[in-house]
Parts: sequence; C-alpha cells; structure tokens
Amino acid sequence: MLEAASVTSLSIDAVDGAARTGTLATAHGAVQLPAFMPVGTHASVKALHPDEVAACGVDILLCNAYHLALRPGVEVIERAGGLHRFMGWDGAILTDSGGYQLITLAGAALVDDDGAVFVSPYDGSRLRVTPEDAIAIQARLGSDIIMCLDHPVGWGSDAATTAVATERTHLWAERCRDAHPGDGRLLFGITQGGFDEQARRESAARIAALAFDGNAIGGLSVGEPLDDMITLAEAAISQLPADRPRYFMGLGTDAELLAMVSLGVDMFDCVVPTRLARNGTALTPDGRVSLRNATYRDDVRPLDEDCSCPACARFSRAYLRHLFQAQEILAHRLVSIHNITHLARLMDATRAAIREGTFSLLREAVEGRLEGRVSLAPG
Amino acid sequence: MLEAASVTSLSIDAVDGAARTGTLATAHGAVQLPAFMPVGTHASVKALHPDEVAACGVDILLCNAYHLALRPGVEVIERAGGLHRFMGWDGAILTDSGGYQLITLAGAALVDDDGAVFVSPYDGSRLRVTPEDAIAIQARLGSDIIMCLDHPVGWGSDAATTAVATERTHLWAERCRDAHPGDGRLLFGITQGGFDEQARRESAARIAALAFDGNAIGGLSVGEPLDDMITLAEAAISQLPADRPRYFMGLGTDAELLAMVSLGVDMFDCVVPTRLARNGTALTPDGRVSLRNATYRDDVRPLDEDCSCPACARFSRAYLRHLFQAQEILAHRLVSIHNITHLARLMDATRAAIREGTFSLLREAVEGRLEGRVSLAPG
Repeated sequence: MLEAASVTSLSIDAVDGAARTGTLATAHGAVQLPAFMPVGTHASVKALHPDEVAACGVDILLCNAYHLALRPGVEVIERAGGLHRFMGWDGAILTDSGGYQLITLAGAALVDDDGAVFVSPYDGSRLRVTPEDAIAIQARLGSDIIMCLDHPVGWGSDAATTAVATERTHLWAERCRDAHPGDGRLLFGITQGGFDEQARRESAARIAALAFDGNAIGGLSVGEPLDDMITLAEAAISQLPADRPRYFMGLGTDAELLAMVSLGVDMFDCVVPTRLARNGTALTPDGRVSLRNATYRDDVRPLDEDCSCPACARFSRAYLRHLFQAQEILAHRLVSIHNITHLARLMDATRAAIREGTFSLLREAVEGRLEGRVSLAPG
Repeated sequence: MLEAASVTSLSIDAVDGAARTGTLATAHGAVQLPAFMPVGTHASVKALHPDEVAACGVDILLCNAYHLALRPGVEVIERAGGLHRFMGWDGAILTDSGGYQLITLAGAALVDDDGAVFVSPYDGSRLRVTPEDAIAIQARLGSDIIMCLDHPVGWGSDAATTAVATERTHLWAERCRDAHPGDGRLLFGITQGGFDEQARRESAARIAALAFDGNAIGGLSVGEPLDDMITLAEAAISQLPADRPRYFMGLGTDAELLAMVSLGVDMFDCVVPTRLARNGTALTPDGRVSLRNATYRDDVRPLDEDCSCPACARFSRAYLRHLFQAQEILAHRLVSIHNITHLARLMDATRAAIREGTFSLLREAVEGRLEGRVSLAPG
C-alpha cells in the first residue's frame, strides 16, 4: 500500500446511512458534495454563459481534455491563460481524460499498453495519448481535478477483453500517479472491472491502493440494466476509502443520483440535462415535460411552479413551446438553465436532508412524486 | 389634407443640419431617437434573452406580426397576456405587418386590391390578410407601433407593376388608418414608389396627407445601388412632416445608418447584426472581424477594445473563434450581443453628436475609421 498522494481535500460534515455531505477543496474554491457537474465538453456548457451556470447553483464543471486537445489545442488554451480564463469560469473544473472515448472508437487496435491513439472527428488527424500525456494535457489546461487515463469497455464485452482493459487501466493509473505534477491539482483514479462484481471489487481495491485524491467509478451507465449498475457500483464502493470523494461518471436521472448518493457517491456528471433541453424536454419533480407536445400550446404556467430559475421566473410553457417550434436558440438556453437548476436544487435538497438525517425520506418523496404516487399541490 | 390622427408623440431635443435627436413616447416607454431596433421576428431576438437585449442599450424591438400570426397564432399570444408578456420584454415593440413578405412570395396573383394571401412556410396553410386584418392582428398582439399593410416591389420591377403596387399601398394606408383602434398605440404609414424619384415623392406626399403617427420609407435597400437608395430616400423625406418620426425599414451598415440620419431619418431595423453574428462575423469600428479566420486562433484581445459589452468584457477572440469552430451556441449569443451593442453605441454617439452640433464630424470619423483612413490607437 502506497502513501496517500496528498493531504485529503475532503471534509465530511454529516452522514446519514452511507450517504454523506461535505465539501471538496480545490484550487478554484470549495465544491459542495454531493455535487452534480454540468458538462462543458468544448469549454462551454452548451448554450449557456458561465454566469448563468453559476446562477443555477453550480460550483464545478466538467470539460473534456481529449476534445480540447484536438480543438482548439492545448497550446491555444495555455497561451490564453488556461482553461478557466479562456472560458470565463472561475469555479472548479474537472477534466475528463478521454478514456471514455475509447468505448466509442472504431477499433480496439488503436489501444495498446503504452497508450491510445485518438482519431480526430474534426479532421481525421491522430493524437497519441499515453497516461503521462493525459496528465500533462490536463495540467497544462489548468484543471482543478485531473482524471487518470482509463480503458473502459462497452456493455456486452467478453471477459477476456474486459480483463485486458481493466488491467491496463490499473497500469495506466500507476503511471498517471507518477506523472502527476501535484501543485494544488487533485488527481482522481478511475475504477473499472466491466460487468462482473468480483472484477469491480478487485479493480476498486487496486485503484484505492494508489491513494488518489478521489476515486471514480467508470464504465457504468453504458447500457447495463439498472439493478446491475447498482450492484456493480456497490461492489466498487465497498473497496473505496471513505476519506476520499467518490465520483460516478456519466449519471444520470433524479432517481439514479439519489440511489448512488444512498451508497455513498459524492459526485456526478451527465450531458442529459442539456441534451434533453436542446430536444425540448424539461425536468420537473413530476417527471419530464416535452414542450413539443401540443398540450402546452396555451399553457401559461412556468415549467415548474416551485422553481425560481430565470426560465420559470419569467416565461410560460406556451412561450417556450413556441420558441422550440420556431427553432429559436433562446429555447435551448432557457430549458438548459432550468434543467441544470433542477439537478442543482435536487443536490441542494439532498445535502440538507443528509445534514438533517432525513435523506431516505427525501428519496422516497422524490421517487414517489416522479412515479405519480404523491401529488403535491402547487404553491 | 386630413387632421392629425393623434397628438404627436415625437419630441425633438436638438437638430444638426437635417439630423435630429429626441424621443418617441410609446405605451412602453420613451424611445431615444435616432434608434436602431434589433429584429425579433418570432418574438425572440435570435439567441438573446430580453434582459441581454436591454443591456445592449436598446429600448425598442421589431417583431413580425405576419410570422407570429402564422405561428404560434394571435390567439395564443393574446391568451398569454399579449406580446410583451409572452416574450418577457417590457420595452417598446414595433410590429411589421407582413407587407415586406409580399416581395418574397412566389406569385403577385396572391395580392389583389382587397388584401393579400400569405402561404405559411411552416405548413402551407393560407392566411388572408386585408389592411383591416393587419391592423387588428397587431392591435391584438399589443404592439406599441403598428405598421400599415403595404405592397413593396422588388428591385427591377417594371413601371406598371410598381404603379399598381404603390397605388394599392396608398389605398390600403387609408383603410389601415380608418381601422386603427387608437388606444395609445401608434400607427405608422409606409411610403413606397419603387425606384423612381418622382413616384417616391408622390407616394410620400400621399402618405403624409394621412397624418400617421410616423412615416416609414419601405421597399428600399432591396438590391438597388447605394446612390439610388439615397436619392430615393431623399425624395421621400422631402415630403414627410418634420414633427413625425421617420423610419427607414431594413437598414443597415454603420455608414448607411449615418447617411440616413444626416437626411433626417430617426429609426432603423435590420437583421444583419444578428445574422452576421450567427455566421461568426463581428462588427467593429474598424470593420468586420470574421472569427472563422485562422488569424484569431491565438488572439487574446476582445472583439473591440473600446467596447464594454459582456462579450468584450470577458472573452477573447481566440475563445469566440473556438466556440464557432466547435459550433457552440454561446458563440452566436456573445457576438449577437456585441453586434447589437455596437449599433446601439453608434446610435448613442449619434444622439450625443447631434446635441453637440458635431454630427458631421462624427460621421466623417466613423467612415474614415471603417475605410482604414483613420487609425485610432487603442486605450
């Protein structure tokens, strides 16, 4: 067992069962946990100004180092003073390494033990990334939380493929750890293990032994049944230290987030709230509202009567529906703001409930309302 | 000569040659003149929140009654409390009647002396609009400045076609005037006359005789040479009363706006600043900046070093270029804000110069800088 890579940056204020709340100290401020991180793949949370993102109640974003290295290039961002200054965001930034993109790439032949070759979707050029490169790129971008380069596998991969990719993830994690420049940046390990409980447990133990500043559960929520996802996450969490933040990559719906919080997960990211927004779908405590539906043509109510986000404060469902029908960009903006606010409010309520020891009641109420079992009278 | 339709809402504070500055009182506040009106065809200035539009220094918008009548429909907006409330804009709104769309429609057969039949580009349905309908639609939307239904002709139309359309415009103007409900809304007439100086003069005299609250010059800036445009506008202006605002429809560039102000025009609208923004082109005092140009890849300067708009205050040309390359919506937003601010600042400088009696100096300086004859040192 290696020594801890750094003094822990996590401060736990309260626990309620396995759920916990607290703060994670970063070079760009404290992050309230549990936290939902909106995704700004290309150094922009789609359609939103950074001040709008902050006003949603968000203190940390995710950007994708792989995409940014391809375009505009690390040099451009470095010369502009780093990612925070480049994109005008003064809060914390977690960068994904690009490992996830290996699932979607055409041939596994592009990965070997030394590293991965990414083919640019923009111009077909090739970018060779070793674990050391992945860390250097993220450090040069100025990321507050750097993610290791990992090798996840797709749902349905065979055992041999999974074993090779998971072992590679562990070897890369060590190399990432050795390459980490420190200097106030946090480095998170990523656990893999495919879709086998025992492999998930072993992977988490191997990553935990490297004493990263935080640990992520990667390669899940990629198509496996929800029950499997929960069992596999639980297997990983059983091996992860309680004094480091736990991050479930690529999640999710209200119910999924609360399920994972109940297991002790602290951080989440997902493109769904902004992607849904662009398709005209708003998240509400009573489920999704699809603004394309003619029902809303004359609906002068806000998306959510209990929400005070800039969309709900001024605009009706009728107007938002009109904007979608007219393909006006303001539609994407307003519903993106609402959807991110919705998840930020859910995390805020979660933190308060954990502090008060009422998290399971909150979870039950949220799930009940989503399933239509509980009807809350408006205002 | 008929009586004035209402007490004049125009207050002239200063004149400088034929240029003048003052205010136009509307049911939604005073509009500073000369004014540039951003276009919100579908009840949204493309990509912008109404508060952002106001922060650009704008107190009046243009919306298109024809488009809104087709989608979402007048009833929807009426039931939502009117156009101001529907779109969350508390400033003045001028609505265009749809006359301009007659230029772009397929067959002139769709127009007769009674009115026009518009074919919906959305679902092919037909909307019959008489002059009386045009007024009623705009009144129901809650427009502050209602435009008469007119019949402009395209550049290159023959004399006979032009004469018929212009005479129809005059007859329709009378019917619009008779149909005007008053009640605090202003009604503007539209002069036509095609591309003949004498016909322009006669049309303006006919429209002026109807004593509208303001008078527009329509059917220009549709492809005719700049010199012709100026001569024809001058012919119309010679017949328009000085105690009513003059509005040149569908203009324009910095130089065109100042040329028209020098002839005594008070109001302008144009889709160009927001359309250019969506294509990655920013307006600056030194000319247009096309952010697609690789020159800006590493350019950490703002679009315009003398501009304090939200785009210039925080973001570099390098970031804006990156956003365009990555097809991020924030690019459209930020450059739209900048371009509208650019024109609002030009109008602000114009008003100040007229008050100080230095308008021709301002015009010379603006044109000189645009043509690269004058180089202003930054800061």
